Amino acid sequence: MRKLGILLSGRGSNFAAIARRIASGRLDAEIAVVISNKPGAPGLDTAREFGLKAVSLPSKGLERETYDRQVIDVLRQQGVELVILAGYMRLLSAAFVREFPLRILNIHPSLLPSFPGLDAQHQAFAYGAKVSGCTVHFVDEKLDHGPIVLQRAVPVENDDTADTLSARILAAEHELYSEAIALVLAGRYRIDGRRVMLLS
Amino acid sequence: MRKLGILLSGRGSNFAAIARRIASGRLDAEIAVVISNKPGAPGLDTAREFGLKAVSLPSKGLERETYDRQVIDVLRQQGVELVILAGYMRLLSAAFVREFPLRILNIHPSLLPSFPGLDAQHQAFAYGAKVSGCTVHFVDEKLDHGPIVLQRAVPVENDDTADTLSARILAAEHELYSEAIALVLAGRYRIDGRRVMLLS
Repeated sequence: MRKLGILLSGRGSNFAAIARRIASGRLDAEIAVVISNKPGAPGLDTAREFGLKAVSLPSKGLERETYDRQVIDVLRQQGVELVILAGYMRLLSAAFVREFPLRILNIHPSLLPSFPGLDAQHQAFAYGAKVSGCTVHFVDEKLDHGPIVLQRAVPVENDDTADTLSARILAAEHELYSEAIALVLAGRYRIDGRRVMLLS
Repeated sequence: MRKLGILLSGRGSNFAAIARRIASGRLDAEIAVVISNKPGAPGLDTAREFGLKAVSLPSKGLERETYDRQVIDVLRQQGVELVILAGYMRLLSAAFVREFPLRILNIHPSLLPSFPGLDAQHQAFAYGAKVSGCTVHFVDEKLDHGPIVLQRAVPVENDDTADTLSARILAAEHELYSEAIALVLAGRYRIDGRRVMLLS
């Protein structure tokens, strides 16, 4: 069983990268469902183009736990084993995190704990960082906080703008997320405190 | 004029690495004076072994500005152009920073802004970072905060301990600091906000 559930709020470029990897046989997994909390998210169109189940589940006006319960129900119905956040612009409730303990992944466009939150690439650029990168981590109830599965450094070049830096980090994200998913699906790790140790 | 003034509190391994670079002709600079605020700092012995002027200037019991004035006086007497902190365990006063505006460098064993303060390598290890590194930055009045000259990523390996990680970061520091000093001495940069842009 290698069933992924994707949660997104926008175009979901990381989702598309994962879908391409699966389609080309480079990632042994199955996307069981793609859920968006934004009805107009372009990521839903992408899901349909890939022939995947796309569910629009508007969050607007709902309490966090009420909404999360709806999402959990869909994920459970589809037999999702591992939840993949791909530009999902909501914090998860404690109930959601408890429902999928260490089975929710997120990717963040910085080397956490540097530059958590929104616009991490712009934060890094304005800070004058010379090295940034991206982080795949297990999700807990705190923003951009859970144990780190993989990180990749991305240099900030002298002639970068925030946009060229963002593009270079995004290219790294598209590789790193699939690598991390493969690793987690294969169970080749153990967790000690915050440290995710890879097993050979 | 390429006169460096070194401030240290301990063994000053980064100072020794800089001194070796200069001695071997790979860094075009001169160490005018090495000052320690700790009388027993092994870095003072290293300075004497290199035939350098070594000054023990105990900070104990002195007000920050009073002490910093003494240090500034020695640096000025020796014609120091660029101040190099090498394990100097004191915050600089505003007066000190104003006296050498953008002419004070520090190295920190993490990719700032991650893991500022003491034991950065242990912080990174305990956090479960997969990429850490080191940072050379201009010094301002805040801890580990000024504009970044250079950063280098150092991977955290699966079988690392905090000590093996520290050793790998230190090896990177020994290269990075001399590169940053050469760059600053040559004036091949301009500063925009917090961003240090290298000029070709």
